[in-house]
Formats: sequence, C-alpha cells, structure tokens
Amino acid sequence: MESALINWLRQRVPTNSQLVLGIGDDAAILQLTDGGDCVVTSDTLTDTVDFELCQCDPRRVGRKSLAVNLSDLAAMAARPIAATVALVVPRTSSADLVRDLYEGMFPLAEQFQIAIAGGDTNSWDGPLVLSITALGEVTEHGIWKRSGAQPGDAILVTGCFGGSLLGRHFDFQPRVGEALQLNAGYSVHAAIDVSDGLSLDLARLCEASQCGSLLELDCVPISPDAHRLAERRGDKSALEHALSDGEDFELILAVPLDDARRLLREQPLDVPLTRIGQFIEQPGLWHAAGGGRRERLEPSGYQHRLDT
Amino acid sequence: MESALINWLRQRVPTNSQLVLGIGDDAAILQLTDGGDCVVTSDTLTDTVDFELCQCDPRRVGRKSLAVNLSDLAAMAARPIAATVALVVPRTSSADLVRDLYEGMFPLAEQFQIAIAGGDTNSWDGPLVLSITALGEVTEHGIWKRSGAQPGDAILVTGCFGGSLLGRHFDFQPRVGEALQLNAGYSVHAAIDVSDGLSLDLARLCEASQCGSLLELDCVPISPDAHRLAERRGDKSALEHALSDGEDFELILAVPLDDARRLLREQPLDVPLTRIGQFIEQPGLWHAAGGGRRERLEPSGYQHRLDT
Repeated sequence: MESALINWLRQRVPTNSQLVLGIGDDAAILQLTDGGDCVVTSDTLTDTVDFELCQCDPRRVGRKSLAVNLSDLAAMAARPIAATVALVVPRTSSADLVRDLYEGMFPLAEQFQIAIAGGDTNSWDGPLVLSITALGEVTEHGIWKRSGAQPGDAILVTGCFGGSLLGRHFDFQPRVGEALQLNAGYSVHAAIDVSDGLSLDLARLCEASQCGSLLELDCVPISPDAHRLAERRGDKSALEHALSDGEDFELILAVPLDDARRLLREQPLDVPLTRIGQFIEQPGLWHAAGGGRRERLEPSGYQHRLDT
Repeated sequence: MESALINWLRQRVPTNSQLVLGIGDDAAILQLTDGGDCVVTSDTLTDTVDFELCQCDPRRVGRKSLAVNLSDLAAMAARPIAATVALVVPRTSSADLVRDLYEGMFPLAEQFQIAIAGGDTNSWDGPLVLSITALGEVTEHGIWKRSGAQPGDAILVTGCFGGSLLGRHFDFQPRVGEALQLNAGYSVHAAIDVSDGLSLDLARLCEASQCGSLLELDCVPISPDAHRLAERRGDKSALEHALSDGEDFELILAVPLDDARRLLREQPLDVPLTRIGQFIEQPGLWHAAGGGRRERLEPSGYQHRLDT
C-alpha cells in the first residue's frame, strides 16, 4: 500500500497516555495503570497470498500464523505470554481444518510457554484467513525499538537469508529465545525482524533511526535455499534473493562496536551471528564499491503490506 | 460450529500460569509479572456474513468492527485501553476504503479514549475482512465473568432487543460506560453481552454458571425495530425477534435481589434497566406458564460462530 496511507494513519489514529509505543514499530506497548507494560502485535495470513491451502498441510499454516507474531515480539525482545486466534474458514471445510490449524500452533505455543487465550472462528464463502494477536511483556532489560540505531553501530544479523519460499517461510524458528538472551547480556540499540526482505526491513530500521547503512555485501549470509532458487529460476543471483525475498524472520540488530566484537567472538546463540556492515550518518542503503566509494543500494522486498 | 470442536479446543489449548481467565468467557485475562491484569478479546467481521459492503457505508463497518470488541470488554466490566486493527481488503479497492474503515472507528475510539495501537493491512482477491483485538484493564472493582450467576439472582438487561438488522447492529452503543458505572456502585454476579441472541446468550451464561433461568416473557423489552420486522416479514412475532435476533449488544446481568431492587428503582444509567426473570437451580431456560407451571424455552439465535 502507498506510504501516503501509512502517514495518514500515523497522524490520524487516536492515542492515549497509556500507549507508550504506537504505530510504526514491530509491536505496540501499553502501560497498565497497576504497573506492567503489555506488548501487543497482530498479523494476518490469507490463503492465496501467504500460503496456498490446497498445496500445503494446514498444520504448517497454523504454525506460521503464530510464528510470524512471535517473531514480531522477538524483534522487541519482549517475552511472549499469550495469543488470541481469529479464524475465518471456508464454509465447505470440515472441523478437521480448524483442528489442524490449531494443532500446528500448539507445539510452538508449548515451546515458548504461551497460552492460547481465546479468539473466534467464523465461516464464510471466502478463502481461509488467520488473524493472530500475540501479547508479551517487557523484561527487566527493557525493549528494543526500530529507532535506536546510531552511526557507528555494527549491523548484525541472525541466521541466513533468501529462498524462504522453498519451505523456511513455514518452518522458521522465531528468534524469541535468542532475543531475550541477547537483551540480557549485551547492548542492542535497535532491532527489526525480516519479514519483507533483508534490504527492505533494514531500510525501515534506518528510516526509524534517522540514519543509513553501509553494507558489506560479501558478508551477507546467504541461505542454501537462495542458491537453489537462483539456480532454478535464473532471474536473480543468490545474493539478490537474500536481500529481497523476505520471510526469513531473522533479526537485524544495531549493536555498539564493543558489544558487537564480543558477540561475534563469543557467538552465544544456537544460530550464527554475522556482521554485514555498519550504520552510518548518511541516510539510505549503501554498499562499499571499489576504491572506498559508496554505491547506493535500492531496498527491495515484499511491499503489498501496510504494516502499522 | 459444532460444540464438539469447542470442547476439544477448551481441553487442548496450551495455557500457563499468567492466563487467569482463558477460553469460554467474553474476554481473556492475563496477569503481567510486574502487576496489572490485561483483558483481551478478538472479534472478526467479514463481508457477506456480518455486513454487505456493497450496500453500506464502510465507516459503519469500521465502527461496528471496533464496537463489537468494546462490547466484549463491557461484558467483563473491563476498562478499554487500546485496539489493534487487522484488515484484509480486496485488491481492487482504493485506499479510500481503508481510510473510511478507520474513519468509522475513530469517533468511537475517541469517545472511549482508547488508542489504536497498530495492526496490519493486507490486500487480496477475496472480500473484506476486519479482525480487531481490544485490550483493557481490570478496575479496582474487579471483573464480571459469565460463571457467577446464583439461583435467586435477578436477570436484568440493558436496553431493548430484536430487529437489530434494521440498523442497530451497526449503530449500537457498546455498554462500556454503563458496565463501569454498575460495577463501581452495585453488586453484579455475572454478565454477558448479547451478540447472538438474548435467549442464546442467556443460555450460555446459565451454562457457565451451572444454573437455569426462569423468564417472564411479558417483561422482555422489545425494540420498535422488532415490531417493525415482525410486521414486515410475518414469520416471527416481535418477541421471537427479541429473543433470537442477536447483535443487540446489550448486557445481561445476574444481580442479587437487593441490588436489583435498588437498580430498578434508581435507574442510574442513560439506558433503561429491566428485570426479565430470575436465575434458578434447574438448568435450562424456562418461562412461567399458567398455574405456576414452567415451560421450557429453546434458546435460539445465530450459531455460526465458534466463540472461544
């Protein structure tokens, strides 16, 4: 959707003193009167856009619909507590579809010890829609926003990128545990999860932080799936897939240099951490060309969505 | 949806110690580690089922989608804080549709001082879907559940019932302020909002409270719209419309006798409170027939939805 609409929304939506963080980040934060900050995020998946129900196991669809929301909480380093599940199922489908969708969510919910707190299921003549809202809380170590990156910070990423279409877009691990672990032991200035594309989501983080990025493209961790897809399709390089495919649901982190060095040395996570460049004052995405020159890199990725 | 599915869900969904109240009430309650209870509810409206987009102003659709969620919070006597909005809009629709949907929500959000905390908008080739999650908090007076009604309690209702299809299903006032006012000044043992039908939702409250209801059908406040619809269609009486149409979004309250008498005398709300019977030990819905006999009343209403 056009950015004019996003800007209109940001300016127009009603707010109040309990909304500590509103539209424009991976999740919102509400301050309860009795104390305690509640982190909330909603994400909707639809048949024919985010998956093809006729071609996949509904349990993978159910799992994904919860996992994308957990990934948003991970991007804030929030601790997940619960989720509500709103389903709209085709009238012709059996109760087994609803069961299978939920069965896909349960193992993930159990893994992260979150409760399914409620929701509703409606039927209609249209295709399947899953809309999940995940709720979390702020830990003693605070939260990460998109807006805290500072020039000089290293750009670190978890995992590898590209070709998620080959299956990882269903089976990815939301980086909830990794985020909590990093937040407890290291300084992280800003973070975002990669839903729409490494370069596009990095550009969003830069915009929110009012800075730019200088990427070292040789350092971008490229998934084996990206190589496979590049070979199979032939229209984009593996690196291009890594920069633009999206649905990797890895984290991009802005980390001050000392902590970045320590992190890269210690590699405390089960998933590799890689430095792919640094944040700079000059807005926009850039990459190092020969002779110390900077070349502009156009962010690309999946833009159908109006994330608010 | 079949009740077998609901029961399966209630037994199977993962829970945790922070989920104070889960599936089976109008909203769920989460206890945050730092204190504060967060009340959360999700409701989804779909084109062709809950409204006909081609026949109505999208602002009314937007308003309704938020209002139904606020009504769920009212049924718990929770104070609303914020909502997240997930939209799936037809690819062919213009940005004006999204604006209009939001414009319909804003006055209601401002009226109840709630923030629109975020959400996402996706486009696809299907009809419009709106899925809203409302968040509230528990006041110092606690919350109402469906399960607290006791035999002997009076059955009180706000407003009047039936014929909401003629327009009130869009333009109803969620009873948020009324619920907070009642909760602060009177004892209320249980409550539910009428989304699917007065008799059906009363039966749900009875089931949750493990009791029954003895209705005085002459006392049921029938909306002028119910009379109009009965005349126009001729297949049901105005009373039948009042008992089964649904989407009145009024409150059914279980109130101990002394407080009920005081409430009926004082009429402290802007909307009338009416006594329509009393809760009894015998399960099920009953109404007083001649000679002190009880006749069974079959609950009826809109059953397509699996409310969890």
